[in-house]
Amino acid sequence: MKTRAAVAFAAGQPLQVMDVDLEGPKAGEVLVEIKASGVCHTDAFTLSGDDPEGAFPAILGHEGAGVVVDVGPGVKGLKPGDHVIPLYTPECRECDYCLNPKTNLCQAIRSTQGQGVMPDGSSRFSIDGKPILHYMGCSTFSNYTVLPEIALAKIREDAPFDKVCYIGCGVTTGIGAVAFTMKVEAGATVAVFGLGGIGLNVIQGAKMVGATRIIGVDTNPAKAELAKQFGMTDFVNPKDYDSVVDHLVQMTGGGVDYSFECIGNVNVMRQALECCHKGWGRSCIIGVAGAGQEISTRPFQLVTGRSWHGSAFGGARGRTDVPRIVDWYMEGKINIDDLITHTMPLDEINNAFDLMHKGESIRSVVVY
Amino acid sequence: MKTRAAVAFAAGQPLQVMDVDLEGPKAGEVLVEIKASGVCHTDAFTLSGDDPEGAFPAILGHEGAGVVVDVGPGVKGLKPGDHVIPLYTPECRECDYCLNPKTNLCQAIRSTQGQGVMPDGSSRFSIDGKPILHYMGCSTFSNYTVLPEIALAKIREDAPFDKVCYIGCGVTTGIGAVAFTMKVEAGATVAVFGLGGIGLNVIQGAKMVGATRIIGVDTNPAKAELAKQFGMTDFVNPKDYDSVVDHLVQMTGGGVDYSFECIGNVNVMRQALECCHKGWGRSCIIGVAGAGQEISTRPFQLVTGRSWHGSAFGGARGRTDVPRIVDWYMEGKINIDDLITHTMPLDEINNAFDLMHKGESIRSVVVY
Repeated sequence: MKTRAAVAFAAGQPLQVMDVDLEGPKAGEVLVEIKASGVCHTDAFTLSGDDPEGAFPAILGHEGAGVVVDVGPGVKGLKPGDHVIPLYTPECRECDYCLNPKTNLCQAIRSTQGQGVMPDGSSRFSIDGKPILHYMGCSTFSNYTVLPEIALAKIREDAPFDKVCYIGCGVTTGIGAVAFTMKVEAGATVAVFGLGGIGLNVIQGAKMVGATRIIGVDTNPAKAELAKQFGMTDFVNPKDYDSVVDHLVQMTGGGVDYSFECIGNVNVMRQALECCHKGWGRSCIIGVAGAGQEISTRPFQLVTGRSWHGSAFGGARGRTDVPRIVDWYMEGKINIDDLITHTMPLDEINNAFDLMHKGESIRSVVVY
Repeated sequence: MKTRAAVAFAAGQPLQVMDVDLEGPKAGEVLVEIKASGVCHTDAFTLSGDDPEGAFPAILGHEGAGVVVDVGPGVKGLKPGDHVIPLYTPECRECDYCLNPKTNLCQAIRSTQGQGVMPDGSSRFSIDGKPILHYMGCSTFSNYTVLPEIALAKIREDAPFDKVCYIGCGVTTGIGAVAFTMKVEAGATVAVFGLGGIGLNVIQGAKMVGATRIIGVDTNPAKAELAKQFGMTDFVNPKDYDSVVDHLVQMTGGGVDYSFECIGNVNVMRQALECCHKGWGRSCIIGVAGAGQEISTRPFQLVTGRSWHGSAFGGARGRTDVPRIVDWYMEGKINIDDLITHTMPLDEINNAFDLMHKGESIRSVVVY
């Protein structure tokens, strides 16, 4: 079949919206009509050429929502008409990782997914017979795409695609880091470094689980207003202090219980650790640092009771947890609507990248 | 009263065994007759002058066991004749730290203890009217010493002083890091970097909690034999491999569940983290690094599910947990006897430091 898709032919070039060929689902695979897709910094990172694992030509996009159109042989858990969110971190429920309650990093299809192909080693996308690579196992910048069954979360049918697509990455990454990875408890004091989309989702996750004090840290005071709407109780601009760590320790009477780094800056990662309370403070890295960059600290920080963690896809097991987060949204426990600042048709997808780079959007969503 | 004690008059000089004056216990304080005291690397570190917080003249020693001789006003939990182990990490059961189940780092008397004095700001030791400092709140290199009640664990009376004194520091530091700080579970794979006294106690702690595979890592193969007796299942000499991390990951099918750094080497701390299993491996720093040294790694190590921790006094709450560890020893669950390689009278205490520096002892114990 033919599908309309935005194709990334090479690093640093705009996407080209065009018709591409799509093969139907093979064994264990599912054909999905994507209804909406967020445009994420990770798509931009790969498109920029800075992603050492980026390969072209490919169809980017990993934050979508849609409807099952067809299923291949052996697919038992999904049928045409089911509403789904694609999962760049699948959940096979059979591998060593899925069977270990301490991790969400299913490895069932990791190596082929990293190579931009389906688990059988081939791509379903092509142009003039030449294969186009999948991306993060999702390729949601195509109106129709094929995914393994284990990489699809079935969600309720009353959830709006153009909002819950954001749960496919950003929302889950932020809220899940709080709720699943770090298990922040009611009454906690939390510091959130970076008030972009991930930081705002960390804030509303902290609010949802009952954190008492939620301190947002950002060098741009213009971000404080929206953050307050999402639950931030205090704003700190690091530019106002000689040492933001000392200030945070002082204003919290010893340091925070939990901190989250939502930027990808290794110096900020260190600050996030060191503003944690002696004895029990736990810091979580969410942001992705540049290739080769390293974090560092004095080991005394850890020996005196702080600990250093990281989170990928919010520690969520996609097929199990993503439907729960959709419920939280539908029940009004979390706010997605105010984070989706721009919506546009696929033809204007390059504008979504421009808005992101100019800092004018929190999240842009392409609707098909 | 007079008491026999080994006094450290200045950094880098041998201890001088002599009579010193000791004031009786004030309010909340307890006079203890020390029956035995281990000689620990921390004593040697302070005596060397490398400890930036070391102050002289002082009476070192922090790993003792003895009998209560007298109590000051207000002491309710101890009486003359009680057998006790001094605690350099006290347990007041009232401060913010004691009331937080996530930490053992009671702060009730931290600042005065760090200054080498009792909580009222004065020392009980003196010579010719000139005060001699306490050390780590214990000063177990004195036959009699005074401690706050909150810094004494009451233990059973059938436990031999010359063995259980080691629970005052080394045993608890190693076993507690496994059992209390990291809560290693049965079936786990564990790597232990450094097979000195702490490493051996980590090994027997891992064995006690049911770890299946316990890998000892040391550049000195002579240490392997005793480590095997304590529960080590595999020995790895880093000198035999280009990358000890790669070798450990390979031999464990992806990495270890838990690792412990028992040396104080920041490069080894990094290896200990990076040999942990993706998704769930947790690394614990026990060793004390040199002043100003830093640990570092790529944040990707944490984002993909490893976490970095530290442990002080094994995460043990002294008054609660030290008596339990004494029970474990008396019940034969842990072996202390084979770790105490040398015993000597106080007059020969400088020999204990020589044996340590020559690497000839695991633990020397002074008996009074």
